[in-house]
Amino acid sequence: MLRQANALLSIRADRPGLHEFTDKVVDFVANSGIREGLLTLFCRHTSASLLIQENAAPAARRDLETYFARIAPENGSYEHDDEGPDDMPAHLRSALTHTQLSIPVQASKAVLGTWQGIFLFEHRRNTPEREIALHLVGE
Amino acid sequence: MLRQANALLSIRADRPGLHEFTDKVVDFVANSGIREGLLTLFCRHTSASLLIQENAAPAARRDLETYFARIAPENGSYEHDDEGPDDMPAHLRSALTHTQLSIPVQASKAVLGTWQGIFLFEHRRNTPEREIALHLVGE
Amino acid sequence: MLRQANALLSIRADRPGLHEFTDKVVDFVANSGIREGLLTLFCRHTSASLLIQENAAPAARRDLETYFARIAPENGSYEHDDEGPDDMPAHLRSALTHTQLSIPVQASKAVLGTWQGIFLFEHRRNTPEREIALHLVGE
Repeated sequence: MLRQANALLSIRADRPGLHEFTDKVVDFVANSGIREGLLTLFCRHTSASLLIQENAAPAARRDLETYFARIAPENGSYEHDDEGPDDMPAHLRSALTHTQLSIPVQASKAVLGTWQGIFLFEHRRNTPEREIALHLVGE
Repeated sequence: MLRQANALLSIRADRPGLHEFTDKVVDFVANSGIREGLLTLFCRHTSASLLIQENAAPAARRDLETYFARIAPENGSYEHDDEGPDDMPAHLRSALTHTQLSIPVQASKAVLGTWQGIFLFEHRRNTPEREIALHLVGE
Repeated sequence: MLRQANALLSIRADRPGLHEFTDKVVDFVANSGIREGLLTLFCRHTSASLLIQENAAPAARRDLETYFARIAPENGSYEHDDEGPDDMPAHLRSALTHTQLSIPVQASKAVLGTWQGIFLFEHRRNTPEREIALHLVGE
């Protein structure tokens, strides 16, 4: 018989960039009692996003941050700048990455590959905690 | 006991760019009778896409449209131009954004953040209605 | 009564670029016995990704490959280059496209549009087989 589990994660990023929270997701799945199913993560913000990426090499993480800072730069002469120069590039970098991720679950674990980690991609400075809604359906 | 609901939305965009249809999605979820679950939106096209973005500031919407017009421009000397200069950039802008979005549902509402709206991102001119398939599983 | 089905696809890409595998997905859904539900595909790698795109025009496919080679180029002076010049651009191109796709299923078929195909986007040279996890929940 299929059933569901939900949680709301709060993640504080102390600086812009990629912040891994795979361990929090692993705990949620393990504690849900659901062994096989579909896990969904949803970021409730438009200036932060989600990314599954290489979790072993810090240099890869830095290159990713540098890349998105370059293709959606702060000095992009945007019309929307009410909240400062990091406001509009944050929306662009969110649009280019992901608001939501779904991952199958098998044997009580998300089926991530060996080198895959789940990251919050914080695009703004001095933000409060970010909310990630978790949903799991399965049995 | 879990069950499912489905619908097919038709959305006509009178011009290229972002068109919010959050209200149609809210209605579908409210009328489904499913209070807790997972909602999925799927765009049945390769030259239009989906985006969850800031729904309060029209300037942010315009900046997003300008940005994607710049990074995947019409004058990009593409090999594929059978259907005109807005054909290939439409595929590129779709690839860079989203064909599909899933959002957890709680208390009969998608758990969107305060400033999040759901948008059709129309990348072509003079298109017919676009079809968005909706699926909801829950209880 | 809802139930689930799972599979693990192995796909070998003989060269970097887009490789359609819609037929393998069609077979999985048809053989699952599930007629209505939600299908999820998950790529277990950070240097290959998924894309739903135009499946009729080979020129559109080539333009997509050329575009991503240009916006995330091999000669991008990356810090992370342990595995060669195609390593870091592979992560960037994966981040810009999709690790996961979900598609509603109706009448035993994913509700793809007429011109939509499902592609593995291989970003590296000389890779082993890639693993795509499939999950289907429905009835």
